[in-house]
Amino acid sequence: MSAPGQAPSAGYAAVFVHEDVPTAEVDRLEALHRPLADSVRDLVDATIRTTVEDEEVRAVRAEVDALVARLRARQLDGPAGVRYNAEGRTWSWGNAVVGERNAVAPPLEVVRDPDGLVHADTVLGAAYEGPPGMVHGGVGALLLDHVMGVAASAHQRVTLTGTLTMRYVRSTPLGPVRVEARIEREEGRKVFVVATLGDPDGVTVEADGVFIVPRWAV
Amino acid sequence: MSAPGQAPSAGYAAVFVHEDVPTAEVDRLEALHRPLADSVRDLVDATIRTTVEDEEVRAVRAEVDALVARLRARQLDGPAGVRYNAEGRTWSWGNAVVGERNAVAPPLEVVRDPDGLVHADTVLGAAYEGPPGMVHGGVGALLLDHVMGVAASAHQRVTLTGTLTMRYVRSTPLGPVRVEARIEREEGRKVFVVATLGDPDGVTVEADGVFIVPRWAV
Repeated sequence: MSAPGQAPSAGYAAVFVHEDVPTAEVDRLEALHRPLADSVRDLVDATIRTTVEDEEVRAVRAEVDALVARLRARQLDGPAGVRYNAEGRTWSWGNAVVGERNAVAPPLEVVRDPDGLVHADTVLGAAYEGPPGMVHGGVGALLLDHVMGVAASAHQRVTLTGTLTMRYVRSTPLGPVRVEARIEREEGRKVFVVATLGDPDGVTVEADGVFIVPRWAV
Repeated sequence: MSAPGQAPSAGYAAVFVHEDVPTAEVDRLEALHRPLADSVRDLVDATIRTTVEDEEVRAVRAEVDALVARLRARQLDGPAGVRYNAEGRTWSWGNAVVGERNAVAPPLEVVRDPDGLVHADTVLGAAYEGPPGMVHGGVGALLLDHVMGVAASAHQRVTLTGTLTMRYVRSTPLGPVRVEARIEREEGRKVFVVATLGDPDGVTVEADGVFIVPRWAV
């Protein structure tokens, strides 16, 4: 399911949150929180790869718990959600693929070219491993799903994922990867999207998906 | 691609790592590191949801950086990989779905019933969000891919994901989810797997996949 950059009508109105915050302040908050999330991304990687002594592992854990308590001194009741302001700025800082404040997300920076090609480049490290030294096949699916959703929502419309098919051509090594997606064709409320995941040597996964424009959003 | 619990032959021999560590010691190390990763999971969540003052965000970031430096004082050169010992114990602590030491992973605990059903229950929080309050569609694909790979590798064989198709029935709310997968049939080196992702109210995503037993592994 994709949640494009607009205040959606009908079905979503209850869950997208309007916030009366000027864009400049949203940008400032994003710039404040992004470095913390980046540091937590480093910590995730270091937690996987460290070989320090047992006592040091326990000591670092206690320090992490103390930092969690400091951050939780004041926090949202639930997930970050998707928010928008009157100027049309939207932010989904907790998104599992693009969320700047979510250390689970690489985070992907998705670019839309004028010709309709939607693409994203990122570098996947130890936290995205499946087979030894390789990107987890499901992580490929995670990134493809997101970028294809962005492509489907081309004109700022809401689309829901209907079906998604992936063909694994070969394994994707950890390191630099690229996701590309574009709309192949449209039929009524159905949007057909094709996409690839690749490494510097070429395509590793091919994907196609059918996205649906909900009746209420037409 | 699934990496079942065995020392694989041929193509994988170079990347799976044999370690001369007794199972008791592997278990001890896992019990030591799992709590650290669990605390980092908490930190990922708190980083998304905190609303503390700017100065506190910056101060916590500096502390996180210091902890990263302590953990990196001694570390693996690359990703954690998949390791095994002479007793047949395997561990893939960095795996993006099941890795006990990987805060990106929930981590899923996958159970195989005697009748062949493979399943996993977990609770997905703020770090797995896509649409507001909902599990990211790609996260569903990530979990399904992994559990289906485990099902395909039923008899400790190596299988590679060939194709994977997902049909989104409805959105999956954040909270408790269950993944189920089983082998539907086999034809030569092809293993056909069917699976579902669901919440307490029933199925939200249906999936089927074709997994391939590589020629060298037959």
